[in-house]
Amino acid sequence: MAKEITSRKENYSQWYNDIVNKAGLAENSSVRGCMVIKPYGYAIWEKMQSALDKMFKDTGHENAYFPLFIPKSFFSKEASHVEGFAKECAVVTHYRLKTSEDGKGVIVDEDAKLEEELIVRPTSEAIIWDTYRNWIQSYRDLPLLINQWANVVRWEMRTRLFLRTTEFLWQEGHTAHETREEALKEAELILNIYADFAEKWMAMPVLKGLKSPNERFAGAVETFCIEALMQDGKALQAGTSHFLGQNFARAFDVKYLTRENKLEYVWATSWGVSTRLVGALIMAHSDDNGLVLPPKLAPIQVVIVPIYKKEEQLEAISQKAHAIMEQLKGRNISVKFDDRDTYKPGFKFAEWEMKGVPVRLVIGPRDLENGTVEVARRDTLEKEVLKMENIDEKIEHLLERIQDNIFQKAFSFRDENTFSVDTWDEFKDKIEKGGFVWAHWDGTSETEQTIKDETKATIRLIPLQRDGDTGKCIYSGKPSEGRVVFAKAY
Amino acid sequence: MAKEITSRKENYSQWYNDIVNKAGLAENSSVRGCMVIKPYGYAIWEKMQSALDKMFKDTGHENAYFPLFIPKSFFSKEASHVEGFAKECAVVTHYRLKTSEDGKGVIVDEDAKLEEELIVRPTSEAIIWDTYRNWIQSYRDLPLLINQWANVVRWEMRTRLFLRTTEFLWQEGHTAHETREEALKEAELILNIYADFAEKWMAMPVLKGLKSPNERFAGAVETFCIEALMQDGKALQAGTSHFLGQNFARAFDVKYLTRENKLEYVWATSWGVSTRLVGALIMAHSDDNGLVLPPKLAPIQVVIVPIYKKEEQLEAISQKAHAIMEQLKGRNISVKFDDRDTYKPGFKFAEWEMKGVPVRLVIGPRDLENGTVEVARRDTLEKEVLKMENIDEKIEHLLERIQDNIFQKAFSFRDENTFSVDTWDEFKDKIEKGGFVWAHWDGTSETEQTIKDETKATIRLIPLQRDGDTGKCIYSGKPSEGRVVFAKAY
Repeated sequence: MAKEITSRKENYSQWYNDIVNKAGLAENSSVRGCMVIKPYGYAIWEKMQSALDKMFKDTGHENAYFPLFIPKSFFSKEASHVEGFAKECAVVTHYRLKTSEDGKGVIVDEDAKLEEELIVRPTSEAIIWDTYRNWIQSYRDLPLLINQWANVVRWEMRTRLFLRTTEFLWQEGHTAHETREEALKEAELILNIYADFAEKWMAMPVLKGLKSPNERFAGAVETFCIEALMQDGKALQAGTSHFLGQNFARAFDVKYLTRENKLEYVWATSWGVSTRLVGALIMAHSDDNGLVLPPKLAPIQVVIVPIYKKEEQLEAISQKAHAIMEQLKGRNISVKFDDRDTYKPGFKFAEWEMKGVPVRLVIGPRDLENGTVEVARRDTLEKEVLKMENIDEKIEHLLERIQDNIFQKAFSFRDENTFSVDTWDEFKDKIEKGGFVWAHWDGTSETEQTIKDETKATIRLIPLQRDGDTGKCIYSGKPSEGRVVFAKAY
Repeated sequence: MAKEITSRKENYSQWYNDIVNKAGLAENSSVRGCMVIKPYGYAIWEKMQSALDKMFKDTGHENAYFPLFIPKSFFSKEASHVEGFAKECAVVTHYRLKTSEDGKGVIVDEDAKLEEELIVRPTSEAIIWDTYRNWIQSYRDLPLLINQWANVVRWEMRTRLFLRTTEFLWQEGHTAHETREEALKEAELILNIYADFAEKWMAMPVLKGLKSPNERFAGAVETFCIEALMQDGKALQAGTSHFLGQNFARAFDVKYLTRENKLEYVWATSWGVSTRLVGALIMAHSDDNGLVLPPKLAPIQVVIVPIYKKEEQLEAISQKAHAIMEQLKGRNISVKFDDRDTYKPGFKFAEWEMKGVPVRLVIGPRDLENGTVEVARRDTLEKEVLKMENIDEKIEHLLERIQDNIFQKAFSFRDENTFSVDTWDEFKDKIEKGGFVWAHWDGTSETEQTIKDETKATIRLIPLQRDGDTGKCIYSGKPSEGRVVFAKAY
């Protein structure tokens, strides 16, 4: 295993690609913009899915599955939705191939042209609201709290593994409610679930807030979001939760009989996180030795590497290792015993470091004599020799400390890279260097667009609670109702 | 809840549709041939996924994810594969829509035509073997044991919910091996996993065997399968495991360095089961009152319905119900307390019967006085009044008995509908009535095809162990190496 990867300092973007590649997380496929998620990368996604799925179910949501294809005309039904999505999508026009005339290949059978083209879903509001029309008659059918795990396709010109790919995996929640208040409450509930997941599982601190109209989801009345700061000072939108008002209910004619016996349009939310989170996880914590994973999302939490010269030493070590494995499994800690005889210990150390396994145990003949084990933690790269007694309990606590430490490190980093500025020059200076920049904004889309054109920074979010700290827009000098958060973003 | 559904006797096909509809399992969508899997149907699929996923992982397989799209030219690389699949698929030709000239809709942007069309995967051998070329260099990289949970699309002209839909969900395993023997062993390992799953989880007895060349997977050397018998006497192929030989390795040029330092083509398998299993589950066990679910796959295993007139009665019953729920949850039994005040008990009974919940508990004021509970089982519709003591243990045992009884019932049905025949007249008679018919066959595709043309019956499988019972083909009179299993099939 060639350990060397580009350092963050040298080339952050290449460092990211190196980790994705060398940790075996994903790779580009033969289909432009589509990635192959390799087993180790997919195992991280499965851990994320499992935690999120439980959080959704614990709050009353159910999973379902809706078609991959959406008839083209459905997109035209919600005016802003079509603007935002229909322009960048995969279009199915035919349903059959036939052998070419020279008999050597296959060609599209022109006789099998669809009457109406089908769009591969870029998001499923249209097909789902078309379905909800039949599911919702009265207030008794509400709320409808449904989530879907699925693949979606958005034709992207510039792609990056996990962060922006033509096809990606995600979950999309689509809920229907009696009242505006209830739908808003749902959108905020999900926002909090996303923030909790990011902080407690991914060990990635996030800011919560609202998107400005320019950055809002196409078809939403309000978009709530969580934003995280990556190590290069760029922001990453890690999840969005949309309050859709009655837009989709109107577009797809979904009305319900109220408790007062009136017909009204249903209120809606939609919300999603995607495999992009794997990219965020990599960029938030990893270092120049490779991936660093928070224990709660690590497919392998502990690896045991034996050091031996003779076969009988390996046997004795194996026995000890298996005893430890049993103890750890009893505490629901996932553990791998790396007894491959085709690789040397140094190679194995580098490989598991690259793959971000939180804890490495090394056992040699001396350890057997002394009743000890060498414990190395991936986050700090510190090693210590511990007595074997209660090793499972010690490791369980160590994993908790690592989870905590990774979060604290990311939190401190964000703290050190968060600025509050009052002038345009200060703003440009800080934005250039990277980080979250709190600044006054006059609330207009024009100013936001101009700032973006001049600095590449966008408004990442408007805080949920404005703190009453009014002031003057850093760009226009016009009155501002409170600071918003700017950053350059992925 | 309208309880009435068409009886099996009256119209088996309508009975099936009624159950899918009234139990809330799935429905047709606005996209021709694509279904919406509703929450209750999806919950059954999730239970299946979870059990199968564990079985795959326990035998060393890992999950990964490969692209939805496959370049058209990939299909031409394996000659028989293209014959079998490329003819019935969704073809993506464009990657953008634009606003129509009248501004009212969207149309395909002809400027955004793909250089090479993309096929929505009908199965992923092609894209996966294109990927494996880079993953496999030497015997050290083998075996490669990978599974994918995904959606696939096969353009079907006549669709039925779960049984045959244009888009469906499935898992597809794709493994690579050093030797022919190892690949064959893998294909049989998976066959046994599928059979175990069908029998122990779905409570559905299956026959294991090999497909005849006519029924083989397009691109396989051998196709192993499991076949189940539905209540109308038709067979249903419930899972297939293919030994692909070196066909795909040759087509995609995947060679490995052997232990003897030679370059050789890799040996392959692929295998899959799909949401079709939900259809099989429905048809195998349900009755004229609705769905019957084996407890191991029931999203809700126990429902508790309170009987009360006064609010304080409900309160007392609720207290008892919650105590029982805690006990049951402690035994990993899923339970729902149906305290909806908008519906009467009779309505609730019918609804949960329709949805196939294995055990229903009814608690009324009299039960509270007597320390009893009424227990009804869905499979036999029997009711009994039990003492509340150790109710959790009693229910756990009851669920096991129900699981077992459902299997035994299906087993007896199959037994009663399995025949061995020696003449063509007997054959036609039995095939017409339905069931598995064991008969001699001369081993030729021509005879198989003629029998199919004349009776609609196909060879469901050739037994793995031929019993040495040679004879004469029921159709041609030519020598046969042993009986094979015929049936009309879904």
